Amino acid sequence: KEEEELRQRFMGPPVSGLRELRRRRRELRSRMELLIMETQGEVCRALAELDPGATFAVDTWERKEGGGGISCVLQDGEVFEKAGVNVSVVFGLLSEEAARQMRSRGKSLKAKDGKLPFCAMGVSSVIHPKNPHVPTMHFNYRYFEIEEADGTKQWWFGGGTDLTPTYLNEEDAIHFHKTLKEACDKHDLKLYPKYKKWCDDYFYIKHRGERRGIGGIFFDDVDSPSKEEVFQFVKSCAKAVVPCYIPIVKKHCHDSFTPEEKLWQQLRRGRYVEFNLVYDRGTKFGLLTPGSRIESILMSLPLTARWEYMHIPPESSKEAEILEVLRNPKDWVH
Amino acid sequence: KEEEELRQRFMGPPVSGLRELRRRRRELRSRMELLIMETQGEVCRALAELDPGATFAVDTWERKEGGGGISCVLQDGEVFEKAGVNVSVVFGLLSEEAARQMRSRGKSLKAKDGKLPFCAMGVSSVIHPKNPHVPTMHFNYRYFEIEEADGTKQWWFGGGTDLTPTYLNEEDAIHFHKTLKEACDKHDLKLYPKYKKWCDDYFYIKHRGERRGIGGIFFDDVDSPSKEEVFQFVKSCAKAVVPCYIPIVKKHCHDSFTPEEKLWQQLRRGRYVEFNLVYDRGTKFGLLTPGSRIESILMSLPLTARWEYMHIPPESSKEAEILEVLRNPKDWVH
Repeated sequence: KEEEELRQRFMGPPVSGLRELRRRRRELRSRMELLIMETQGEVCRALAELDPGATFAVDTWERKEGGGGISCVLQDGEVFEKAGVNVSVVFGLLSEEAARQMRSRGKSLKAKDGKLPFCAMGVSSVIHPKNPHVPTMHFNYRYFEIEEADGTKQWWFGGGTDLTPTYLNEEDAIHFHKTLKEACDKHDLKLYPKYKKWCDDYFYIKHRGERRGIGGIFFDDVDSPSKEEVFQFVKSCAKAVVPCYIPIVKKHCHDSFTPEEKLWQQLRRGRYVEFNLVYDRGTKFGLLTPGSRIESILMSLPLTARWEYMHIPPESSKEAEILEVLRNPKDWVH
Repeated sequence: KEEEELRQRFMGPPVSGLRELRRRRRELRSRMELLIMETQGEVCRALAELDPGATFAVDTWERKEGGGGISCVLQDGEVFEKAGVNVSVVFGLLSEEAARQMRSRGKSLKAKDGKLPFCAMGVSSVIHPKNPHVPTMHFNYRYFEIEEADGTKQWWFGGGTDLTPTYLNEEDAIHFHKTLKEACDKHDLKLYPKYKKWCDDYFYIKHRGERRGIGGIFFDDVDSPSKEEVFQFVKSCAKAVVPCYIPIVKKHCHDSFTPEEKLWQQLRRGRYVEFNLVYDRGTKFGLLTPGSRIESILMSLPLTARWEYMHIPPESSKEAEILEVLRNPKDWVH
């Protein structure tokens, strides 16, 4: 009966199987897999409710080298241009390239005969709405485990939630950041300021001198104070996704807009593509990893984007207003 | 009088100045600068003639660290969605990062106090037409000089011309390759086969398992048999740009097309963006180089592009036909 309930809340069968997850329910890996499955279900249902005419295409896929995932994509709806929510649970042996990248991030990984068994799981999502007054939202929460030669396990969590508006709406920016701050504050008052700054630093399009959006929170390689405590923090963040974003979509999805506003949105979508293809660690890692599912990685790209040569918005325009905030990030809550 | 004539053929004043170019007219640097200026003028005039309603925006820009360039961009015309032809002549001291990249390509560069004076010049262009039956074309011809600690100069040429059709037209593919082959054959019969293969290998979108287009020629680091001979070869290639491409534009720019064909074009434009941002050496180098002109580098991106999740064309469709050629490059001339 409990299994039946879970099945209805999930978008598909969990990669590890419901029975296996139940058997190993005390292990963090299992609890994290249930959390990412639940988050995927929650977010997909909340989005589908706002866009009743559209439906999610649900693809269950397997990775030859070990593991698999579920990709849910809603495309060309009334409210959403493209909304993807992806879960993946992959395991196997770390590639040389991946191990090198991790070592370059300061991890000392002692391999046995060059082999490093790993397990990586996460939920990730990008939502591109049609209306230029509804911002794009991205979130990702992930857990990583590596077994070293002597049998000890290294583990860490990473993730974040961030907002990319076409036009600035201060009330929305405050609501978004406030909701994330509340999720962080339950665990440690130092987390929000630290991860808010990390987000501003990470989503930086260096060649443009602009951030991708107005930020949110971002963190990686987090392995303290304890596995349980970090998991509880990640859980709070995952539970904050719907309340931080959905009210903003509801508020603006019927706003009227001009062709000029749509055009500015398309230009900003171009910048989104630039960030994801040139800088995003997850995308680059995915494109370089053998056996990764390209369609799931690139579902973060918008349905449509535009690049104009030398587009410079007039001073004091609404377009210049958002650019100013992208160039000089603001504190939205104190 | 001769100067007046040159002025009319060029899109702007050469970076080194007409008088200086005249004074040093025997030097290869000067002859190459005149060639790239002439090529820019030729191509822009040929394009403008086909799109009489549109005009080229001409931007003359300077680089703080030394040199500058002329960017010519035609946007949202009747025939061309976006056509950019850029000349740049930059000099100064090579950045550490750039020197490292060159060494990784097998160049031994002996620096004096870590300083390597260099001069780089080239003409580069991407033409994105509106009609899906007219292919996108790219070309780039460049010359590089580095002065080592002992005063010796290393130099090399690079470049190429390649075609990216939305739909396959065998006649056009043959015309394009044949024209390039003829330009190569005048110098050495080995060049076309070698540079044709290099082109297929270079414009490879690894994560898609597809080439960007149906190829052409591509070469880099060419420094033999002699400066003069390589220059003459590059000149032949540059002179072949208009005859290899313009007849194809003329032939198809009034072809009728369906909304479905336009959509397929937009999806292929997305792939073009993927190649340029993820793999293209020139773009990546530019984005990492301090003081480079971002708008000139990214003018290669199309005006509009599209990404659909899991778009797979039906078997035996015209869309599947071009994909087959992008996956398995063909020989178009023998």
